[in-house]
Amino acid sequence: MLKNFITSNRFQNLIIFLIVLNGIILGLATSKDIVLKYGEILDFIDTLIIFIFTIEIILRIFVYKIDFFKNPWSLFDFFVVAISLVPASANLSILRVLRVLRLFRLLSVVPQMRTIIAALLGVIPGIFSVSMVLLLFFYVFSIMATNLFSSHFPQWFGSLGDSMYTLFQVMTLESWSMGIARPIIEVYPYAWIFFIIFILLVTFIMVNLFIGLIVDAIFTIKGDEKKEEKSEELKQIEELKQEIKQLKEIIIKSRE
Amino acid sequence: MLKNFITSNRFQNLIIFLIVLNGIILGLATSKDIVLKYGEILDFIDTLIIFIFTIEIILRIFVYKIDFFKNPWSLFDFFVVAISLVPASANLSILRVLRVLRLFRLLSVVPQMRTIIAALLGVIPGIFSVSMVLLLFFYVFSIMATNLFSSHFPQWFGSLGDSMYTLFQVMTLESWSMGIARPIIEVYPYAWIFFIIFILLVTFIMVNLFIGLIVDAIFTIKGDEKKEEKSEELKQIEELKQEIKQLKEIIIKSRE
Amino acid sequence: MLKNFITSNRFQNLIIFLIVLNGIILGLATSKDIVLKYGEILDFIDTLIIFIFTIEIILRIFVYKIDFFKNPWSLFDFFVVAISLVPASANLSILRVLRVLRLFRLLSVVPQMRTIIAALLGVIPGIFSVSMVLLLFFYVFSIMATNLFSSHFPQWFGSLGDSMYTLFQVMTLESWSMGIARPIIEVYPYAWIFFIIFILLVTFIMVNLFIGLIVDAIFTIKGDEKKEEKSEELKQIEELKQEIKQLKEIIIKSRE
Amino acid sequence: MLKNFITSNRFQNLIIFLIVLNGIILGLATSKDIVLKYGEILDFIDTLIIFIFTIEIILRIFVYKIDFFKNPWSLFDFFVVAISLVPASANLSILRVLRVLRLFRLLSVVPQMRTIIAALLGVIPGIFSVSMVLLLFFYVFSIMATNLFSSHFPQWFGSLGDSMYTLFQVMTLESWSMGIARPIIEVYPYAWIFFIIFILLVTFIMVNLFIGLIVDAIFTIKGDEKKEEKSEELKQIEELKQEIKQLKEIIIKSRE
Repeated sequence: MLKNFITSNRFQNLIIFLIVLNGIILGLATSKDIVLKYGEILDFIDTLIIFIFTIEIILRIFVYKIDFFKNPWSLFDFFVVAISLVPASANLSILRVLRVLRLFRLLSVVPQMRTIIAALLGVIPGIFSVSMVLLLFFYVFSIMATNLFSSHFPQWFGSLGDSMYTLFQVMTLESWSMGIARPIIEVYPYAWIFFIIFILLVTFIMVNLFIGLIVDAIFTIKGDEKKEEKSEELKQIEELKQEIKQLKEIIIKSRE
Repeated sequence: MLKNFITSNRFQNLIIFLIVLNGIILGLATSKDIVLKYGEILDFIDTLIIFIFTIEIILRIFVYKIDFFKNPWSLFDFFVVAISLVPASANLSILRVLRVLRLFRLLSVVPQMRTIIAALLGVIPGIFSVSMVLLLFFYVFSIMATNLFSSHFPQWFGSLGDSMYTLFQVMTLESWSMGIARPIIEVYPYAWIFFIIFILLVTFIMVNLFIGLIVDAIFTIKGDEKKEEKSEELKQIEELKQEIKQLKEIIIKSRE
Repeated sequence: MLKNFITSNRFQNLIIFLIVLNGIILGLATSKDIVLKYGEILDFIDTLIIFIFTIEIILRIFVYKIDFFKNPWSLFDFFVVAISLVPASANLSILRVLRVLRLFRLLSVVPQMRTIIAALLGVIPGIFSVSMVLLLFFYVFSIMATNLFSSHFPQWFGSLGDSMYTLFQVMTLESWSMGIARPIIEVYPYAWIFFIIFILLVTFIMVNLFIGLIVDAIFTIKGDEKKEEKSEELKQIEELKQEIKQLKEIIIKSRE
Repeated sequence: MLKNFITSNRFQNLIIFLIVLNGIILGLATSKDIVLKYGEILDFIDTLIIFIFTIEIILRIFVYKIDFFKNPWSLFDFFVVAISLVPASANLSILRVLRVLRLFRLLSVVPQMRTIIAALLGVIPGIFSVSMVLLLFFYVFSIMATNLFSSHFPQWFGSLGDSMYTLFQVMTLESWSMGIARPIIEVYPYAWIFFIIFILLVTFIMVNLFIGLIVDAIFTIKGDEKKEEKSEELKQIEELKQEIKQLKEIIIKSRE
């Protein structure tokens, strides 16, 4: 009975409504003027929504028991609600910010969005090994950049982390030349080799990763279509065969 | 008779000619020198064209009656002409600017352009749910950015609207690092996590949206082709079947 | 005989060699140091090459007569060589620059490159009508931008031409926000609407144009493949039919 | 026996482990603090790893003999290890930086990565001739830019090399307008023609290159699929034919 209640459309719609309401409240709470005027009301509704979410999660744990923790969507719901319950001290002010992640519950509750997220996640295994190659290039070029440029340009290549961030920026092509490469070329005249090779390589790998995704997407759908189609045409040929077999039998009989 | 006149090629071409002429006049009217010299002539022609457009719309309403308002293209024509008729006061100077939208009538009058616009609009339902997911990410990251950075960077993240605009800029990768992220990282050393995650997520969703569009486009056309093709091959097999059936009948008869 | 000479591989290779040599000379001539030292030699070789090219063109006109001027590749060769012969006065210093276009003769002489250029040009009709729609949006937004922003930002939107250049820059997403939109939003707080709509619209049209190109490319090749393929399978079925026909005749005969 | 040892999984995993360990050490060695504290230990492990790599290469040369130098992967391994053995003098400090290339041995040792690199390299012949066209355009526009702008903008277009670098930057659309084109247009009002044509041309060629890659990828995979598929359906039709042939024989026999 409890399970029926939890999985009922009415209950699901209530949860969706509460998430949307929570989204509006968290949006309004970014404005200082509104917080000054209506801060207490917003806080109250927010607390109420967290309270309902907590009860919902408890009910679901009660109903599904251990299965609850095997479902990644349930775990996601559990953690984003759990974060909201931890009291945010001054040291952990980041927790207050992470509470907004609660709104991502919409992804797990609305079926269409769930489908999209599942599709997006389903793409990841296909790009995993190319991403590893990309990461290796990234790592090697970051070490080289740190060794080459850290002494004169500590703000960009001071540490391995700085270099990785800067090369990520270069990969997005943002201010890579006027902002980064040209000042460096002033000091190291051959630095253009480093940047041109890096950009050509990374762009080339990214383009191929992208093409891989397109081709995968096309052939996944086509594979499904093919099966249906094939069955159609092969079925027809199969029927033809049956006809001919019957024919053969008739003739053989007639011959006797 | 009036309907024949309105839908005649000659009348359509006149309208196209007037829109193009109107485009040239509105283009010339952006130059102060030309307005000083020929302002009155330009104004006169412009008023004349609006007058003809108004009569055209009235004729079409008269001919098609209620159907006129059911056709989205007609409604579009109606509104862009209507805007031109509203007197622009100082408070509503935006209306004067919106008059230029009149030139978009070309989209509704030239059949080829109409086809393209219809095709472009036809793409939207397919990207609707992914766009909603993208919008949700956008909204959640904007709230987080406002909470995190509004105190030190009010010019970029002062309000929820400011944050959404800034994150849109970051999404287009324009000056995201040198302009926005680096100054913020100076103050909040861990802000790079926010920006890198945001860029990776949004780019990933956009790439998948784009791939979805490509795959959709390919399979829409292929679906049409398949039907024709299938009928061709299946028809052949069908004929074969008929042949064999006849054969069977002949044999059965011959056996008797 | 003259035709054989002109179309001979040896002659073609000589022309290719001369174009490449010309490319090297024009490249070297960009350096002032080299011009100071070897300027006269470079000039002499350059003049010699132009002389040979001129003779080649004359020979080809002599051989092909009127057909020479019907072939777009020949016309291209004719014009780039003709430009090199016009004496460049101070007023026409641009002519000196256009002489470099001579190197594009490589595109018309090397068959592989000719194929690629033909393929690239073959794409244009397919994107023509979408480009026209894009151009219309561009024109309308440029007029609007000039009307809205010319008074405060004459350096970007002073004239219709300035606006079109600036919006082209915005379309490439270069400094669109930090460079253009943010300063304008300071003065006109609602200008973000203009820029966001323009970027979304233009990007959307460009993406669709790109998808159209992909789909076109796929189905052009597939169309060719299909024909071959179909004939294969249909031929088989045709043979089957023939077999059955024969069978029928045999049976009918046997029945008599 | 030695060959079995070298090709054994255990030995391969050891090499992979050493490369990863080497990667961590080279990463740690970018930090001055860590080098000050643990520099000697890191150096020792690094030397040890190079030593083991050298022995591995010697063993492989010993086993495979001349075949070792015919395998491009082996040659790659040979060179990156050889670079690490050359003593880096002050004049050749670049060698120290190139030692990091050693980590790319991961690409040649891990089979999945090897597959990806092979796939990436396999794409190159397909884009070779378009790249040559692109390079020609690049070269011609660089000469023109040097001739046109070198006198006023030596920092960007001072030499042919400078121009090629700057046009590469323009091709990536980084600061092309606010950074490069607008200052130039101030001096040469018609320079916009040069930049707009260059960007349109280069983008158009790049887009077509990209589409070529997609189409190639799709049809390579499809070609493979087609063969399997075809055999399936044609086999069925073949069987049908056999059936009918048998039938014919039976009838002919029965007739006699």
